[in-house]
Amino acid sequence: GLGRFGVYYNENAATEVTLESRFRLIVTGTAESDNGLSFGAQIRYQSNEHRDGYGAPQGNAAFNTPRFWVSTNGFTVSVGQVLGAIENMPGMYTGSIGLTGLSYRNVVYNFGADAYTSGSTGSQGVDVIYSSGAWGVHLSHSWDGSGNAGRGFDRTAVHGSYSTGQYTFAVGFQDSDNAGDTEWAATATGTWGNFTGTLAYADNDGNAKYGIAGDYQVGAATFIRGYVNHDEGLGASGDENYGIGFQHRLGGGTFLEGGVASLGGATSTTVADLGLRFSF
Amino acid sequence: GLGRFGVYYNENAATEVTLESRFRLIVTGTAESDNGLSFGAQIRYQSNEHRDGYGAPQGNAAFNTPRFWVSTNGFTVSVGQVLGAIENMPGMYTGSIGLTGLSYRNVVYNFGADAYTSGSTGSQGVDVIYSSGAWGVHLSHSWDGSGNAGRGFDRTAVHGSYSTGQYTFAVGFQDSDNAGDTEWAATATGTWGNFTGTLAYADNDGNAKYGIAGDYQVGAATFIRGYVNHDEGLGASGDENYGIGFQHRLGGGTFLEGGVASLGGATSTTVADLGLRFSF
Amino acid sequence: GLGRFGVYYNENAATEVTLESRFRLIVTGTAESDNGLSFGAQIRYQSNEHRDGYGAPQGNAAFNTPRFWVSTNGFTVSVGQVLGAIENMPGMYTGSIGLTGLSYRNVVYNFGADAYTSGSTGSQGVDVIYSSGAWGVHLSHSWDGSGNAGRGFDRTAVHGSYSTGQYTFAVGFQDSDNAGDTEWAATATGTWGNFTGTLAYADNDGNAKYGIAGDYQVGAATFIRGYVNHDEGLGASGDENYGIGFQHRLGGGTFLEGGVASLGGATSTTVADLGLRFSF
Repeated sequence: GLGRFGVYYNENAATEVTLESRFRLIVTGTAESDNGLSFGAQIRYQSNEHRDGYGAPQGNAAFNTPRFWVSTNGFTVSVGQVLGAIENMPGMYTGSIGLTGLSYRNVVYNFGADAYTSGSTGSQGVDVIYSSGAWGVHLSHSWDGSGNAGRGFDRTAVHGSYSTGQYTFAVGFQDSDNAGDTEWAATATGTWGNFTGTLAYADNDGNAKYGIAGDYQVGAATFIRGYVNHDEGLGASGDENYGIGFQHRLGGGTFLEGGVASLGGATSTTVADLGLRFSF
Repeated sequence: GLGRFGVYYNENAATEVTLESRFRLIVTGTAESDNGLSFGAQIRYQSNEHRDGYGAPQGNAAFNTPRFWVSTNGFTVSVGQVLGAIENMPGMYTGSIGLTGLSYRNVVYNFGADAYTSGSTGSQGVDVIYSSGAWGVHLSHSWDGSGNAGRGFDRTAVHGSYSTGQYTFAVGFQDSDNAGDTEWAATATGTWGNFTGTLAYADNDGNAKYGIAGDYQVGAATFIRGYVNHDEGLGASGDENYGIGFQHRLGGGTFLEGGVASLGGATSTTVADLGLRFSF
Repeated sequence: GLGRFGVYYNENAATEVTLESRFRLIVTGTAESDNGLSFGAQIRYQSNEHRDGYGAPQGNAAFNTPRFWVSTNGFTVSVGQVLGAIENMPGMYTGSIGLTGLSYRNVVYNFGADAYTSGSTGSQGVDVIYSSGAWGVHLSHSWDGSGNAGRGFDRTAVHGSYSTGQYTFAVGFQDSDNAGDTEWAATATGTWGNFTGTLAYADNDGNAKYGIAGDYQVGAATFIRGYVNHDEGLGASGDENYGIGFQHRLGGGTFLEGGVASLGGATSTTVADLGLRFSF
């Protein structure tokens, strides 16, 4: 699991500075059959600042929906809460900054696809994942029914990835009737010494979002991360998002993290955070 | 705990085939005093397909009510959620089939008595269990009040069992004012090599249910199970239930399971399931 | 965690004798940085008699709000659910009796300050704790906002304590606009062989509460505890509370506990309990 706590600043909020905290507990059960099949199941409990499992309003803090998987030789079938093929494209999260991610505007697909979530219900469906050497394929599918009943749309997504030396390329497609959902996305990630950079593009139901993001290790335990991108879907005629953050590793799974980002839109907002995080 | 996932088929459902999954986490705390008393307490978290602890409707996925016990020398007193004397008669669950139990129509007492449940509240009360050599006695009591307040009825049940060589006999009685509750039940279980068979009878508030159930080990890791019974309470003048299933043990606490059953009644239904299960 | 179960008697209740039980599960995650900072986070699950996480009414049984801390060299900063400076004064809980605490009338500050709770939400805020040799200081602060939004008042409390040989003295102050909240409190605790006694005084928004409480070890594994105090806030012109209880240690973290107390007020009530408790 993880714990994190710190302060969060939002230029446009009524209370600009607030306490930010999160407790996540990951419960994983595993078993292995004699013929080498690995079975697993996982639930996650998550509680943000001053959230508990008591009283109304509900939705405060609880275990999410479980995910089950069986895997062998690089091949994994997962049922229950969907991981999501677009969400899991290599390079999609390059440039994630701060203690909280600061709205994760570095992620070009704008969460217009199924994605695993620790703090909510997610979508129910199936993932099929295969990797062999330099190649990887991830197929995900969720449908209207079986836990998503009444959602009104199906989602089928697939990504393929290929790594060669210092470069990794990935392209993903999604078939969905949901307004705003991502049509396709592509990432190109390269590593040069201590620097990893990603060019990313997504077609989010007709609105292109594209940009560059990078992670740079500046010292033995210190990382600088940042991104700049343009989203045609922001404001009247598109706008930019950009942000920069740092992570300092204190050892033993403990981190000091912070960042600042400009979130574009009809009303641009500057947000920032700073705090401590640790995994256990 | 356990994880299981697979597909469930119901001939008469709007969507005949659905994804089926369950995650169960068992949390047990124990302690032992210097004079040999064993103390224990247990809660269980259960989540079925796409159920979480968030949002409405509640009742989705959560921890059940705790049970506490203290035991010594074959004598156990349990308070909190009731185990149930009729539920725990030897042989009562012979012939349980499939991944999900397929409605457990093999169980002749039709759940007309207190029974421990991982996925709900159960009844609050007391169990007293004693076993010595070939004899076993189980008394359970729950009453209107103390957590069952407003339920409107008390339940007191007792069973006695006796084992001799390859045979086990059990008989149980219940005093309850609740309509439909079991009056008494009896089971006779025998084992012949790889085969275990049970004759079971229950008087469910005037409606007799009786039948035969069996478990047969057909190979090193494969079991066939089945049952046939008649229930006077089904349909206008009684009907039959029957089913057959298999379990293949994959080792390491992993199982491939499936079954098919005909559930009698005014409208008979055929149900089936197939899937993977593992314990952790 | 802990488990406890027994019977509870209340002279004035409709059902005088009820089953009492509690299950508490403590989940703690910790990490330590290379420079010696200790990080921690904790949530607690609590379920009382026949309480579960399912269905309405909510507030039955669940995880409380998390607490996060980082500490080094006797200095601790804690965010999330507040521990409370008045609650944690040395000697404040001397004389706690029985299986359940029997309403904890021995605690002179009458819970008119922030206090950590396993079975509810508590207050969100910050604690700063420092101890060095004989001296200890604890500062706590919670405010209207950041999880307590709408509460309508801030609370700032501090206590200092000093130990010298067999005596410990503590004094605490609180600034709060909440009606009934404690203004200040003081405790003096002394130990003579097997006996520990505490004189305690609290000014609860103008109503003084003061008394004496003691713990006495009468045998190798048996303790007698009791208290007498006067509370100006009870009834028309003040009334007395008194109680006595015992704890017998069965070894291995198991206990037999019971007590009886007279709770003063316009209508005085006698309550009593008896039961088993164990920690795991």
